Amino acid sequence: MIDRGTRPIEPWQLRETQLPLDELAQAESLFALSNGHIGLRGNFDEGEPYGIPGTYLNSFYERRPLPYAEAGYGYPESGQTLVDVTNGKLIRLLVDDSPLDVRYGVVNAHERCLDFRAGMLRREVDWTSPAGKRVKVRSKRLVSLTQRAVAAIEYVVEAVDEPIRLVVQSELVANETQPRLSDDPRVSAVLESPLQAVSQDSDAEEVILAHRTRASGLLMAAGMAHLVECSARMEQDVDVREDWGRHTIICELKPGETLRVVKFLAYGWSGLRSETAVTDQVSAALAAAKFSGWDGLVEQQRDYLDDFWDAADVKVEGNPELQQAVRFALFHVLQAGARAERRGIPSKGLTGAGYDGHTFWDTEGFVLPTLTLTVPDATADALRWRHSTLQLAKDRAAELGLKGAAFPWRTIRGQECSGYWPAGTAAFHLDADIAAAIERYHAATGDDDFIQECGLELLAETARLWISLGHHDRRGKWHLPGVTGPDEYSAVADDNVFTNLMAARNLKTAARMAARFPDDARKLGVSVEEEATWRDAAAAVYIPYDEELGVHPQSEGFTGYAEWDFEAWKGRYPLLLHAPYFELYRKQVVKQADLMLAMYWCGDEFTAEQKARNVDYYERITVRDSSLSACVQAVTAAEVGHLDLAYDYAYEAALIDLLDLHNNTADGLHMASLAGAWTALVAGFGGLRERESGPCFDPALPGGLTGLTFTVRWRDVRLRVKISPDEVTYDVHDGPTASLAIFHAGEKIFVKAGTPVTRRLTPRKPLLPQPVQPIGREPLAAFGRTLGDRGTS
Amino acid sequence: MIDRGTRPIEPWQLRETQLPLDELAQAESLFALSNGHIGLRGNFDEGEPYGIPGTYLNSFYERRPLPYAEAGYGYPESGQTLVDVTNGKLIRLLVDDSPLDVRYGVVNAHERCLDFRAGMLRREVDWTSPAGKRVKVRSKRLVSLTQRAVAAIEYVVEAVDEPIRLVVQSELVANETQPRLSDDPRVSAVLESPLQAVSQDSDAEEVILAHRTRASGLLMAAGMAHLVECSARMEQDVDVREDWGRHTIICELKPGETLRVVKFLAYGWSGLRSETAVTDQVSAALAAAKFSGWDGLVEQQRDYLDDFWDAADVKVEGNPELQQAVRFALFHVLQAGARAERRGIPSKGLTGAGYDGHTFWDTEGFVLPTLTLTVPDATADALRWRHSTLQLAKDRAAELGLKGAAFPWRTIRGQECSGYWPAGTAAFHLDADIAAAIERYHAATGDDDFIQECGLELLAETARLWISLGHHDRRGKWHLPGVTGPDEYSAVADDNVFTNLMAARNLKTAARMAARFPDDARKLGVSVEEEATWRDAAAAVYIPYDEELGVHPQSEGFTGYAEWDFEAWKGRYPLLLHAPYFELYRKQVVKQADLMLAMYWCGDEFTAEQKARNVDYYERITVRDSSLSACVQAVTAAEVGHLDLAYDYAYEAALIDLLDLHNNTADGLHMASLAGAWTALVAGFGGLRERESGPCFDPALPGGLTGLTFTVRWRDVRLRVKISPDEVTYDVHDGPTASLAIFHAGEKIFVKAGTPVTRRLTPRKPLLPQPVQPIGREPLAAFGRTLGDRGTS
Repeated sequence: MIDRGTRPIEPWQLRETQLPLDELAQAESLFALSNGHIGLRGNFDEGEPYGIPGTYLNSFYERRPLPYAEAGYGYPESGQTLVDVTNGKLIRLLVDDSPLDVRYGVVNAHERCLDFRAGMLRREVDWTSPAGKRVKVRSKRLVSLTQRAVAAIEYVVEAVDEPIRLVVQSELVANETQPRLSDDPRVSAVLESPLQAVSQDSDAEEVILAHRTRASGLLMAAGMAHLVECSARMEQDVDVREDWGRHTIICELKPGETLRVVKFLAYGWSGLRSETAVTDQVSAALAAAKFSGWDGLVEQQRDYLDDFWDAADVKVEGNPELQQAVRFALFHVLQAGARAERRGIPSKGLTGAGYDGHTFWDTEGFVLPTLTLTVPDATADALRWRHSTLQLAKDRAAELGLKGAAFPWRTIRGQECSGYWPAGTAAFHLDADIAAAIERYHAATGDDDFIQECGLELLAETARLWISLGHHDRRGKWHLPGVTGPDEYSAVADDNVFTNLMAARNLKTAARMAARFPDDARKLGVSVEEEATWRDAAAAVYIPYDEELGVHPQSEGFTGYAEWDFEAWKGRYPLLLHAPYFELYRKQVVKQADLMLAMYWCGDEFTAEQKARNVDYYERITVRDSSLSACVQAVTAAEVGHLDLAYDYAYEAALIDLLDLHNNTADGLHMASLAGAWTALVAGFGGLRERESGPCFDPALPGGLTGLTFTVRWRDVRLRVKISPDEVTYDVHDGPTASLAIFHAGEKIFVKAGTPVTRRLTPRKPLLPQPVQPIGREPLAAFGRTLGDRGTS
Repeated sequence: MIDRGTRPIEPWQLRETQLPLDELAQAESLFALSNGHIGLRGNFDEGEPYGIPGTYLNSFYERRPLPYAEAGYGYPESGQTLVDVTNGKLIRLLVDDSPLDVRYGVVNAHERCLDFRAGMLRREVDWTSPAGKRVKVRSKRLVSLTQRAVAAIEYVVEAVDEPIRLVVQSELVANETQPRLSDDPRVSAVLESPLQAVSQDSDAEEVILAHRTRASGLLMAAGMAHLVECSARMEQDVDVREDWGRHTIICELKPGETLRVVKFLAYGWSGLRSETAVTDQVSAALAAAKFSGWDGLVEQQRDYLDDFWDAADVKVEGNPELQQAVRFALFHVLQAGARAERRGIPSKGLTGAGYDGHTFWDTEGFVLPTLTLTVPDATADALRWRHSTLQLAKDRAAELGLKGAAFPWRTIRGQECSGYWPAGTAAFHLDADIAAAIERYHAATGDDDFIQECGLELLAETARLWISLGHHDRRGKWHLPGVTGPDEYSAVADDNVFTNLMAARNLKTAARMAARFPDDARKLGVSVEEEATWRDAAAAVYIPYDEELGVHPQSEGFTGYAEWDFEAWKGRYPLLLHAPYFELYRKQVVKQADLMLAMYWCGDEFTAEQKARNVDYYERITVRDSSLSACVQAVTAAEVGHLDLAYDYAYEAALIDLLDLHNNTADGLHMASLAGAWTALVAGFGGLRERESGPCFDPALPGGLTGLTFTVRWRDVRLRVKISPDEVTYDVHDGPTASLAIFHAGEKIFVKAGTPVTRRLTPRKPLLPQPVQPIGREPLAAFGRTLGDRGTS
C-alpha cells in the first residue's frame, strides 16, 4: 500500500512532489495517459529509471501458447497478450557529459501532475548533474482525445547557473527490455522482442517505423515529428535503424536560455491493411497533429474535457480526499473508454499490461454502467465490439456443445484465453452481464437503432446459450447446475443465485426486445415459439433459499458448507495465493460480491428483509480479494441502511489505486473499481436504479458527507442530482424544453428545465445492526468519517 | 480393437502366428515380461521394427516441469515420468549382408508365445533374406521371478539351406529413439535422452553401463554377460561407448548347424548409493545368473509359477476364451506385483509407460484385492511402499491446509504429480482406498505385525485427513463437500456417497485398530479422545438419498441434473476426448462405477432393494470410458441377479487388452481391469466378500458357464471353491490340520482338511428386469453366452 499523505489533496489534479524510486511502477499507472486507443504509461521522458515501460495500442496483441500439465477437450490452445509497442515517449537528455537520470546527481525539485481538466501530464524537474551542471526541465504530455491516433509532448530545458551543452535524443524504440515481474498469475506474461521490423522511413521532418508481431501477424506503425525552438546555435540530425529512430538536437545554452522541443507522435495498426496503408495513415495523423500544433491540441483537449466534466462530474462535499479520488477515477474511466471505438475496454484500460491486457466482464458489469450515464456513445461502441466478436462466441459455444454464443471469460480479440476453465469458461454469467449492459444502455438512451443494429442479436444469442445450459427438473423448475458465479472462491456450483437470476433477466429481455422488433427477430431466426421458451424458462427459474437461516445460499448448499477459519487465515490475503482452490471452493468464504451483486442488479427479486439478512450474512464472510467487490458492497450496504459502512466501501473503491490497496497497481489501474467508485456514490448514496420507465432515485448520505452532486445523461437530457443531508434537488439541462420523468423513492416526478424539484430524503432505518467483516478485512475507514487516522493505515 | 480369432485359444499360453505390423505396440504390451522390478516390453530381439521400445525399472523416473496456463496455489510444479532405460534385450543378427528385419525378405513362419506356466516368452522365426539366405531363429526370454535383478535370453540361429555367414551383435543401448505417439494426455510424456553416461566397464566376460537421469539424479546400471556355443569357427569381440555396449559374434554355419547365445542381463538402480556400489551390485547379479545358468533360471521360474498357480488358478468351464483371458490376466498381475518389493505397482505394471508409469488408486482398489488372496506378501509390500511415502503425503496435506496425510492421485516416488486438481488432488478417496486395502489385508492374513509396523499409522493419518476435510452441519450430520469420487465425469461434488461411506469406513477401521493396539496408538499420538472423534464422525456421516426416485444420488443433487443425450453422443467415445469437462460434470453421465463401487465395497450400507434400484438406475447412464468399471459392474450385476450381464462384464474386464477394447493397450496393459477380471469371477460369481470373521461366499453361475473353480488364501490356508451350476464345494489344503471358518449364504461353516463341504446354491432372483446400457456402450457379449458372434465384434 502507498502511504497516505505523500500527495497533496487537490480537487482537480493528482500531483507528486516526492520521488520514491520503489514506487515508480505504481506512479506510472496512476500518471498514465490514454484515449482508449493509445496508452502511455507515466514513464519518465528520458526512459529510465522505469518500473514497467509501457506503450500500448488497444487490441494490439501477440499470440502465445497456453500450456497444460494435463490437456482437456475444449481448452484454449493459445492466449493473447497486450504488446508493449514502439515507445515514442522517449526524450533523452545529455547535460554536458551526464545523461539526465534521477538516480544520479541531485534532484533539487521534482513534480509530476496529472491534470483532470486539461487532460495532461505535467512534469518539472530541477536537476544538478554529478558534474555540477544544473538544468530545469518542464515537460507536458498528452494523448489526444480529439485526434485518436495522436499523442504529443512539449519538452523545455533551461540552463540555470552556467552555460551548458545539451544533446536531446528524441526517439522511437521498439522491443524495449521488459522487467521480469513476479510469478503471480495475474501479471502479464512477459513477451520478449515480439515485434519484427517491417519498414523504416525517415527524413528531416519525420520518422516512421513499421513492425509486425511474430505470431499474431498484426502490423503497427509509429511516427514522430518535431518542432524545435532555440535562441542559441543548434544542430539537428535524424538516424534510423530497424528497431529505433532517433532525432538528435545539439545546442549550447547560456543561463536562462531554453530549448523547446514539441514532439508529435502518431500510431496506427491493422490486422488486414498493407504496410503502405498503415504507414500512410500514421503520416497523415502526424500531418494533422502538426496542423493543429501544440497549442491547438491542448485547446481541443480542454474543450473535450470541459464537455465531459459538465455532464459527468461528481461533487463530493465533506471529504476532499474522496472528491479527488472520484475525479481521478472518472478521468481514467474516460481515458479507457473514450476512443476505444469498437475495441474492447481492458480491465486495466491501457495503463498497464496486467491480466495480459485482457477484457473481462469488468467492462459490461462495472465500466459500462458508468459510461452509459456519462458518455453513452462509448458504451454503444464497447457493445459493438462485443458484437463484432459474436461469430467467435458462437463458434466457442458450438465447440462446447452449446447453442447460441459463449463469450470469452478473458480475451483481447474475442477468442477465449482462459487457461483454467472452472474460474473462466464456466463463468457463463458473462453472457448475462453483456445482456444487462444492453438493457441498461437502451433504458438510458432509448436507442432503438442500436438494438436493431446489434443489440437484439446479442440478446438472442445469449438467450440461446442459457436455454442450452439450463434444464427443467421433474417438478418443472429450471436449473443451471455446474456453473461459476461472480465469486471466484466458489466454482462449478449448482444454481448460483446471481447466475440464475441474471440468466432469467437475459431471457426476459431477449423475449421483450424480440416482441418489440418482430421483423428483426424473424431475420435472426427467432420464432414466437422460441421467445415463449425464453419466457417460460425465466418464469420457472429455481432460486435456492435457506428457510432455516432466512438467507439465500449463494449457490445450492452453500450455507451448509463449513465456515472458514478467518482467525487462522488472518494476514494471509489474498487467500488465493495461500490456499488451494478446492479448499476455498468448499467452504463459506467469498472473494467478492456475488449474492450481494444479485441483490443490486436484480433487486426486485428480493424483499427488503431478505436484503437486510443477506447483507448481514455475506458481509461476515466476504474478504474482498477482488477489486470488483467494494463498490457493490457500498451499494448494498447503503440500501439496507448501513450508510457508514457504505461510505467506507465507496472510499475503498475510489482509492484502490491511489493507495495501491491490492498491491498490484503497478500492473495497471483497476478500471472496474474506479468506475465502481462512481457507482458506489450514485447508486449507493443516490440510490439510482435504471429502469425502462426512467431513472429511480432514493438518496441518503452517510454521516461524514455534507453534500453530493452528480449528473446523469438520460434520453439526451442531463439530469443534475444535488443531495444534501436532508433533501435532494433534481434539475434538467439541455435547453428550455428539456424534461424527464424520474422516480424519487417510488414517486413519479416530471422534471422540467428551469424548474428544479426538491424532495425531503426518506430516512434510512437499518433492520439489523451494522455487520462486521472478516477480521483484518474491514474496509478502509473513510478519512472523512474517522478524522485523525490519516497516514496510519 | 484387435480382431478376435487371430490368436489361438489355448488354456495356458498366448500365442501369435501372424505378424500384423500395425499392431506391434499392442503385441509388445501383451507379450511383456516383468517381475515387478524389471519390465521388458515384447520388442523383437533385433530391436526393429518396434511399436514402442521399452525397458523399465520400477520407480526409475525422470522429473519434468508441469506447465500451467494459469498457475494456482498448491499445484505440483514437477511431474515424474517412467524412463525407458538401457535396453538389454537387443540381439541384432546379420545374415550374410542383410540384417534380420521382418519388414524385408520373406517371413516363412513366425510365432511368439507367452507361456503362463513357464513364465517365458518364446519366439520362432523362419526367415529368408532379400538375398535368398534362409535362417531359423528360436529365442526364449525370461525376467526372473526368483532373481529379482536378472533377465535372460536364449538365442539360437540355424542355417537352413546353404552355408551362411552370421554376425550377432548383442547389445546394451541407452537413450533409444522414442516414437512421437499422440496428443492424448493419457500417453506418457516423451523424454528425449534422459540418461547421462556415468561409467562404462567391459571385458571379455561382461559389459556394464552406468547412467544417471538429468533432473531426478537417479543412478542406474545395466550389465550383460554371454555364453556362446557354436560348432563352427567363431570370433568374438566386445566394444563399449558412453551409450552402448556391444558383444559381437561372427561365425559361418553350414546347413543344420546352429549358433546358441545365452545372454544374461542384470539391472540395478539407486537414488542414494554410489556408482561403484550400483555397478558392483549389477556385476554380482550377473555372476549369480551365470551360476544358475540358463537351465537353472528356467527351472526356478517354473517352480515359482507352479507354486503361484497352485494357490491362484481360476478354472473356468464353458468358455475357453475367458479361461485363457483370466489366466493371462493373473499372470500379468503377478508379474506387476511379484517382486515390486516396497515400490509402487503402476497402473500399467511395467508393460508400458502409459500414464507416465504412474501409480494410482488402481493399486489399492483393484490390484491389491486380487493379490491379497493370492500372493498376500506382495500386498504387504505394496502397502509398505505407501507407508514409505507417508511423510510426503503429510507434507502435501499440510501444503493443502489439511491434517494427516493426503496421498497423491498419481505418482511414482510419492509426490503429487496430478496437473488437474479437480480430477486429481480432489479425489481424496484414495486415502480411504488405501485404508480399505489395509483392512482387507488384515482380514485375510490376520497379520497383526503389519498393522503395528505400518498399517495403524496409515489408518491414523488417513483418518486425520478425513476429520480435517469433513464438517458437521447444524443438525449434526457429517459432510464432505467439494471432493471428487471415483467417477471422473463428475468432480468437486458435495457428499459423494462412495467417498462419504469409504471415509466413514476408514474412520471406523482406524478407531477399531487403535483400540486393538492401544500402545501403538499412543505412540502415534492417537488419544482415546481422537479415536472417539473418528467414531462419532463416521456414525454421523450424511448419505444423500432421493426418496422420490428411490435411488441414491451419486453425490448430492446428482439425480436432479439434466440427462445426457446418449443418442446424440453415440459413436463419440471416450466422451472426454469430445466434450468439455464442465458439460460432463453437470449432467447425468457416469464414466465408471462410483455408486456401484460403493455398493460393492460398503455393501452392508444398502438394502437389497436399494441395490437393485441403484443398479437399474446407474447401469443406464454409465459409459465405461474407464477401465476400472466393467469388473465392478460385474460384481454388482451378479449380486442383484443379472448374471448374464455380469458374465458380459467379467468377459469385458478380462479381454480388455487381448481385444484392445480401450484402444490404448499399446501404452501398456490395464492392471486394474486384469485384476478385476479375477474379482468379477470370484466376487461376482463366487460372491466373495472379505470380513474379519472370515470369507463370505454366495455363489451363482451365469447361463454359459458350467463350472468355476478358484482358490483363495486366507490365514495361511488355501481354500478351494468349486462351483457348478447347482452346488458349491469348499475344500481346504495345507496339511491335515488346516481348517477355516467361512460363510456360505450367511451360514457359518467350518471347513477342515480332507473334508470338503458341499452346499446347494441359493437361486438368484432379480428384483427388476435386466437394465439396458447407454446406446453403443453395452458390454461386449461374452463368446460363451452368444455363440456364433466370434470374429464379428
